[in-house]
Amino acid sequence: MGNLYVGLLHFPMRDRRGDIVATAMTSIDVHDIARSARTYGVARYFVVTPLPSQKRIGWRIRGFWTEGERAMEASRRGDALEIVTMAEDLEESIAWIRDAEGMEPLVVATSARIHEGRSVSYQHLRREIAKGEKPILIIFGTGWGMVDELIEACDMLLPPIMPASDFNHLSVRAAAADRIGGENGQHH
Amino acid sequence: MGNLYVGLLHFPMRDRRGDIVATAMTSIDVHDIARSARTYGVARYFVVTPLPSQKRIGWRIRGFWTEGERAMEASRRGDALEIVTMAEDLEESIAWIRDAEGMEPLVVATSARIHEGRSVSYQHLRREIAKGEKPILIIFGTGWGMVDELIEACDMLLPPIMPASDFNHLSVRAAAADRIGGENGQHH
Repeated sequence: MGNLYVGLLHFPMRDRRGDIVATAMTSIDVHDIARSARTYGVARYFVVTPLPSQKRIGWRIRGFWTEGERAMEASRRGDALEIVTMAEDLEESIAWIRDAEGMEPLVVATSARIHEGRSVSYQHLRREIAKGEKPILIIFGTGWGMVDELIEACDMLLPPIMPASDFNHLSVRAAAADRIGGENGQHH
Repeated sequence: MGNLYVGLLHFPMRDRRGDIVATAMTSIDVHDIARSARTYGVARYFVVTPLPSQKRIGWRIRGFWTEGERAMEASRRGDALEIVTMAEDLEESIAWIRDAEGMEPLVVATSARIHEGRSVSYQHLRREIAKGEKPILIIFGTGWGMVDELIEACDMLLPPIMPASDFNHLSVRAAAADRIGGENGQHH
């Protein structure tokens, strides 16, 4: 299969009232998802926000752990954060992958909601991956989820993680661990 | 299979120098793992610490979301935190399950390290579960991991999540999502 990429998007998201917002980046999302991504062999983790101040904070978190003596820490936090790249928008992430891989990635959206007629199974996704040899970019939303137009612009949409559960409110940190682990076929 | 339980232990843990410590409980571990546990159908999530002040904080976090008007929030945070129970030690968690289920749980430890000759596969665990109809308690460590004596006192030990990866430093929030999702057979 092609290389696997992950993106965490902070815009354009819905807030709890349904309005479109740029959500705030959190340090714990940068760290946790970088550690999951690095453990499961993801090539790069894009933290996507259009806000210049947030992008600077993201680069600073990365630099804190990847430069100087912190980079030598036994926790190997720097090894995980090294795969983090801040990006302006989804297009910038896609362009980064195009430059690195010499081809367009297959962009796969994730959602905790059911979108009728849109989602594909993991099996289907795996078949597509096997066919195309394309790099894959799996994207995650924040806040109350991605706006529909963003989901529609993606090549594929994965179904909710526990569609039959009466409760489906995973943190994005847990959802990312589940999706990335499932995607690379490492689940038991 | 029997009901599934989860425990997050803060003592006795190793710190980075190998000394035995009680680690600090964090609000994000309480929330994230409660949300994962609730989504995957876990019966109860024990947050285990011997420190009275930390237990009070844990109960307060739970109460904040499960009592009064917060309990009605659309995020359903209270539904997740309702399954949280603070416990003094592993024995108190086991006693709780014994009272609820009328039998002893099978206690399953998890570790990011390889313990020679100790760990069993998920397949083996599933067979044991199918045989015994016992409730299962999966426990997670914090800090730099559980002391060996604690692991040895458990009925079983699961292998590291990505034993072949050159990097295996998942956050406990991601590890719990992966283990609980895998355990209840919901992975794709």
